[in-house]
Amino acid sequence: MSRLSAMSGYPEFLPGQRMVEQQVLQVLRETFELHGYAPIETRAVEPMSQLARKGEIDKEIYVVRRLHATDEEAATGPDQLGLHYDLTVPFARYVQEFGGRLSFPFRRYQIQRVWRGERPQEGRYREFTQADIDVVGAERLADHHDLEIPLVALEAFERLHTELGLPAVRMRVNNRKLAEGFYRGLGVTEPAAVLQRVDKLDKIGADKVRALLVEEVGLAQDAADACLQLSQITSPDSSFVDRVRALGVEHPLLEEGLELLSTLVAAAAERVPGRLVADLSIARGLDYYTGTVYETELAGHESMGSVGSGGRYDSLASDGRTTYPGVGFSFGVTRMLAPLFARDALRASRPVPSAVLVAVDTEETRGAAEQVAAALRARRISCEVAPRADRFGKQIRFAERRGIPFVWFGGVEGQVKDIRSGDQLDADARRWEPPAEDLRPRVLTD
Amino acid sequence: MSRLSAMSGYPEFLPGQRMVEQQVLQVLRETFELHGYAPIETRAVEPMSQLARKGEIDKEIYVVRRLHATDEEAATGPDQLGLHYDLTVPFARYVQEFGGRLSFPFRRYQIQRVWRGERPQEGRYREFTQADIDVVGAERLADHHDLEIPLVALEAFERLHTELGLPAVRMRVNNRKLAEGFYRGLGVTEPAAVLQRVDKLDKIGADKVRALLVEEVGLAQDAADACLQLSQITSPDSSFVDRVRALGVEHPLLEEGLELLSTLVAAAAERVPGRLVADLSIARGLDYYTGTVYETELAGHESMGSVGSGGRYDSLASDGRTTYPGVGFSFGVTRMLAPLFARDALRASRPVPSAVLVAVDTEETRGAAEQVAAALRARRISCEVAPRADRFGKQIRFAERRGIPFVWFGGVEGQVKDIRSGDQLDADARRWEPPAEDLRPRVLTD
Repeated sequence: MSRLSAMSGYPEFLPGQRMVEQQVLQVLRETFELHGYAPIETRAVEPMSQLARKGEIDKEIYVVRRLHATDEEAATGPDQLGLHYDLTVPFARYVQEFGGRLSFPFRRYQIQRVWRGERPQEGRYREFTQADIDVVGAERLADHHDLEIPLVALEAFERLHTELGLPAVRMRVNNRKLAEGFYRGLGVTEPAAVLQRVDKLDKIGADKVRALLVEEVGLAQDAADACLQLSQITSPDSSFVDRVRALGVEHPLLEEGLELLSTLVAAAAERVPGRLVADLSIARGLDYYTGTVYETELAGHESMGSVGSGGRYDSLASDGRTTYPGVGFSFGVTRMLAPLFARDALRASRPVPSAVLVAVDTEETRGAAEQVAAALRARRISCEVAPRADRFGKQIRFAERRGIPFVWFGGVEGQVKDIRSGDQLDADARRWEPPAEDLRPRVLTD
Repeated sequence: MSRLSAMSGYPEFLPGQRMVEQQVLQVLRETFELHGYAPIETRAVEPMSQLARKGEIDKEIYVVRRLHATDEEAATGPDQLGLHYDLTVPFARYVQEFGGRLSFPFRRYQIQRVWRGERPQEGRYREFTQADIDVVGAERLADHHDLEIPLVALEAFERLHTELGLPAVRMRVNNRKLAEGFYRGLGVTEPAAVLQRVDKLDKIGADKVRALLVEEVGLAQDAADACLQLSQITSPDSSFVDRVRALGVEHPLLEEGLELLSTLVAAAAERVPGRLVADLSIARGLDYYTGTVYETELAGHESMGSVGSGGRYDSLASDGRTTYPGVGFSFGVTRMLAPLFARDALRASRPVPSAVLVAVDTEETRGAAEQVAAALRARRISCEVAPRADRFGKQIRFAERRGIPFVWFGGVEGQVKDIRSGDQLDADARRWEPPAEDLRPRVLTD
């Protein structure tokens, strides 16, 4: 069981939970690397001038200064430092700074903590871990990367599901070009203004969005209706295309968006069946997305909100000479794991790596126990030597308390006891192996 | 080649360097887990009241506050937050907070960044990664853990040396009991005052230390001489014991220290020969150590200073009811790697995980290339599909620029070219494997 520590908004895990998190991160890293994504990390701080570019996140930034800063350092100014609140802003800066030594398209993954001064609640923390993948080009980036990123993300989620037992996901995908083309086909001149209102659908409902579109954006009633009808279309296959066409709106950008989205839906149905749906209500508040956008929920845990999202952006960064377009996805690692831990829906089979406790006869023969441990470790079997030469019964109970399944008695040629069954057998520490499922702590789900 | 980024003191690595760092961290994690150490992470911030307990580190702390903090939040007080400057203070707090759900002796490792407002220079950074192991007991912790920790640390360093080619280490070890017993045997009543001066030996030399011992601590000339003679004793074996005894000082604590240190020297000579020396000049400035203390240098890179240190402490934490003694070791991961990167003494064989670039005939047959990639990835072979259907010569040069050794042509039953030798062979993507040494980026040293 997890609990929020005394400091609300800063979740800390018990050792068994951290072992689960490590296995999750290992699956993510492996999947990313199989697809050619290289790892980077960036410093935790950025100049406030970089961080404050997105106005709406402004208020959530943590400012950092040396306790005994000199007057010069303490002066608030553009060079004041803040903790990064996502991994996109630092990545954009990294690409500009190291661009000359990177080869494009550049695929990177980055798994780090980020900090936001949000009001703490389930799924919203002040410090949490994100795992981001992005592919960025110099000046241009082909459309096929719009397929690549959500498919890599789906493959990673699917491995978490099949290999570790985490809940399956539902990824909801839309395309900004589709929506923008549709709005323009309706005669809208400021599609962003429409998108912004449609984005509130979940929060305020269809009637209020319709009212906003008419009153604030100046749409005619039937145009507002068409926008709402578009946003209500979802399908697990390409049938959404016909339903959009049935609304009778035409625009080249709309066609482009329909084509991109149906290609993605078809590719996902082939590669990771049953996990991706076209959902034309997905808008993604941040305004820098320009193509595919996606959000991901855990099946059965929809109340947790999105645990992974991202999209296409035409300009991650620009230094005046080069513009870097990209496609990215961000896994909310803490947002996914902390609530599952709190619900006890996810845990480790034991809270220590050790598969074996090597018992100690007397303090004088501790060296013999150390030799057994060395023989086991040489073959990658995690073990620990009992801390005290207590009665064997007490040493067995010590192993039990830690969830260690085996206790070793005697020397390298000794005996090993499975303390769950009570079976005790002769064994040689240079050859004996625990059953594969006991070798490392396993991830258990309910 | 690394460089300090534009922001001095915050080293950032290129992707190939990060891949080297990941392999280093993987070796550390594996070694720690084989010895039963469980992973934890703690939040990056602690209340200033926790952080400021060690007076001398005070000035290096980074204070954190929300940019738009309310007046109440902004008020400086005991609950103001700072970034942790080591992993010991947060671990002590973690043990107190979660102690009821941990089993003691508790072995943990913790690999995280820490922040210090130091003046940046080689080996001194404002943000850097440490890897700590500690074993802590509730109320008591047996002496054999004084052997355990430095032996685990040596084993980890030795694997970095033999498996990844990092420089071998020299670990210099002393025991506070030995020094304290010796000083008390000389009639000194405040051994800490002597230790503090002897700790300056490296910086100010023997003559000045002798003068301080006489003038500031009030030692007689011959007592000061004896202290300096003690600090000049080093040996790779137990011969230091006789040399200490030859100084003619007697005290029970001295005997205890000699016994502990010679046991450690003997155990290290057996388990990891040639790496550990008794060096009675090692003092470790921080005053909480009470037994074994150690520092570690990389052979051939002594100018980098210590890359790993730690020791025994009688009270990591105390909550009034329970006192937690422990033994710990801290690996300076960034302090070790950043200078080696800067000296180009350490690098990856390629800057991307991909072993294979799958060439693309035409944009229309990109799907066939994706199938090849999927077949390779299913067998854990990292690959990427060419971004554009350029002429093959151009695609090969693209692979070359990224250091990708193989290019695949045609479908699943196709051909694979080793672009270093130019050899091109028929191959089936469901069966072909690259040579083991090409499967993942390797760590190269000069």
